[in-house]
Amino acid sequence: MDDTLLRAFPILDYAAVFVFAATGALAAAHRRHDIVTFGFFAAITGVGGGTLRDLLIGAPVFWIEQPGYLVACLAAGISIWAFGFGRFRMRLLLWLDALGMAAYSVVGAAKAGAFDVSPLPAIVMGVLTATCGGIIRDVVAEEPSVLLRREIYITAALLGATVFVGLRLMGVEALPAGLAGFSAALALRACAIQFKWSLPAFRGKVES
Amino acid sequence: MDDTLLRAFPILDYAAVFVFAATGALAAAHRRHDIVTFGFFAAITGVGGGTLRDLLIGAPVFWIEQPGYLVACLAAGISIWAFGFGRFRMRLLLWLDALGMAAYSVVGAAKAGAFDVSPLPAIVMGVLTATCGGIIRDVVAEEPSVLLRREIYITAALLGATVFVGLRLMGVEALPAGLAGFSAALALRACAIQFKWSLPAFRGKVES
Amino acid sequence: MDDTLLRAFPILDYAAVFVFAATGALAAAHRRHDIVTFGFFAAITGVGGGTLRDLLIGAPVFWIEQPGYLVACLAAGISIWAFGFGRFRMRLLLWLDALGMAAYSVVGAAKAGAFDVSPLPAIVMGVLTATCGGIIRDVVAEEPSVLLRREIYITAALLGATVFVGLRLMGVEALPAGLAGFSAALALRACAIQFKWSLPAFRGKVES
Repeated sequence: MDDTLLRAFPILDYAAVFVFAATGALAAAHRRHDIVTFGFFAAITGVGGGTLRDLLIGAPVFWIEQPGYLVACLAAGISIWAFGFGRFRMRLLLWLDALGMAAYSVVGAAKAGAFDVSPLPAIVMGVLTATCGGIIRDVVAEEPSVLLRREIYITAALLGATVFVGLRLMGVEALPAGLAGFSAALALRACAIQFKWSLPAFRGKVES
Repeated sequence: MDDTLLRAFPILDYAAVFVFAATGALAAAHRRHDIVTFGFFAAITGVGGGTLRDLLIGAPVFWIEQPGYLVACLAAGISIWAFGFGRFRMRLLLWLDALGMAAYSVVGAAKAGAFDVSPLPAIVMGVLTATCGGIIRDVVAEEPSVLLRREIYITAALLGATVFVGLRLMGVEALPAGLAGFSAALALRACAIQFKWSLPAFRGKVES
Repeated sequence: MDDTLLRAFPILDYAAVFVFAATGALAAAHRRHDIVTFGFFAAITGVGGGTLRDLLIGAPVFWIEQPGYLVACLAAGISIWAFGFGRFRMRLLLWLDALGMAAYSVVGAAKAGAFDVSPLPAIVMGVLTATCGGIIRDVVAEEPSVLLRREIYITAALLGATVFVGLRLMGVEALPAGLAGFSAALALRACAIQFKWSLPAFRGKVES
């Protein structure tokens, strides 16, 4: 039962919501918005990916059931407002975002599995949960999309979700499978940040 | 039972859909689109916020159950097409939009309450219902986002939903609580329009 | 029972997903993305419109039940990656897109009808299914929106869905009604491509 994993990681889950929410507030900071807009962007970024996942698999939306997630988003928004963002904190945020993405790639796939979604769509759910909060943030805040960056990002989420689902199919327990998926996603994303890893770009002919 | 409020305000509800739809058609007018695109933008703006609310709380989507809302959207689109937009009508629209926003901040929170959503998420539903139609319109029409304006807007919706939910928690009846929330949201937005009120912007350090 | 239509056209349905997915991969090709991003854009474009339809009418999301649709999207992404896009293929794609749009305008309305959605919202579902994959693609890929083109597009989807729903209301069987709707949408879109047909643009006064 993949629920075990979800119950084993409540702190990680809240941490992921918090760091994604912080990146939303950062987008608001860039545009010098007011405190309410900080909270709004923090909330849609923090819970956006998980909300889409829950709608797709037919689960009750998680933050409606447990408003604590909204409180975590607001706390992230207020923190960014209060402390601002120096160069060191930007670097910290990049790494926290990697942590959140890795956690969500596994949590998203695990929750889909708990709702009897088959393997391929479950992997897609992991990727969507890990990436869609950031996509919504960039579209609404009119920031350059995280998807259009060159560095490996979606690929790391895909790796994490695939490792987790693959190991579960081979009969591995939820907890070690989850740790393996999380570690794989985090390691790949860390290399992408540190060494500017990217996949080869399309070199085919394009005429329009 | 917060349903009372929903049944007490059917005209206000239709009026809110109509004025939001009119703002959608206006975006189409700016770009000099054809009549079908007018109707399309009118519809997604008019029912967008309420549709998101219904999906999130697990309610049947309101305009599928009651197609009259679609008719109101189309009527708004055709009206804008037929009568155009002089300076006076623009001013009128701004005030109608304020009316719609104020109504939706309360109706959104009330409908969430009727589906047993707890107070904090219910307030969020009020804000989403009041703002998301406009957000969808601006993203799809490639207009500057309503969220990126400086004037108070989200804050007014937040105030309206909070006043309503707060009074309900204190045991006030749905109708007076709804009127209080509606009035608070409308008054704050009116001041924002008239006196260009805005909240203080973020002044912290931002490096990227 | 409009389900007949859905079962009669499984190949057309997969073909529509495939061609829409190919247009998503093409957006990725324009920006010279990597293979994973190709797959991501192919998937959100291919299944986006149908996903929105299923969420709105309360149906289980189709690609979660039948992961074969995801495989079709990935195949489309890989095909574009492998073969690139010369001028001839661009022209081919435009026509395949017209085929997919025409098929989806009918399939979307038919599925809504199978879930007891009334006529006007069912027509809206046909239009949304046929257009929203492309809208999501353009918003996320930061391409100029398909909606902001002048050529007839939404109108063709509207015609197809309206003809189908109208004939069904008059008691025509699902299959001939579907063929009529499909043909009407395809014919109108073909004329728009070939002869650059467009509806008259709004000429009213706009002040802002």
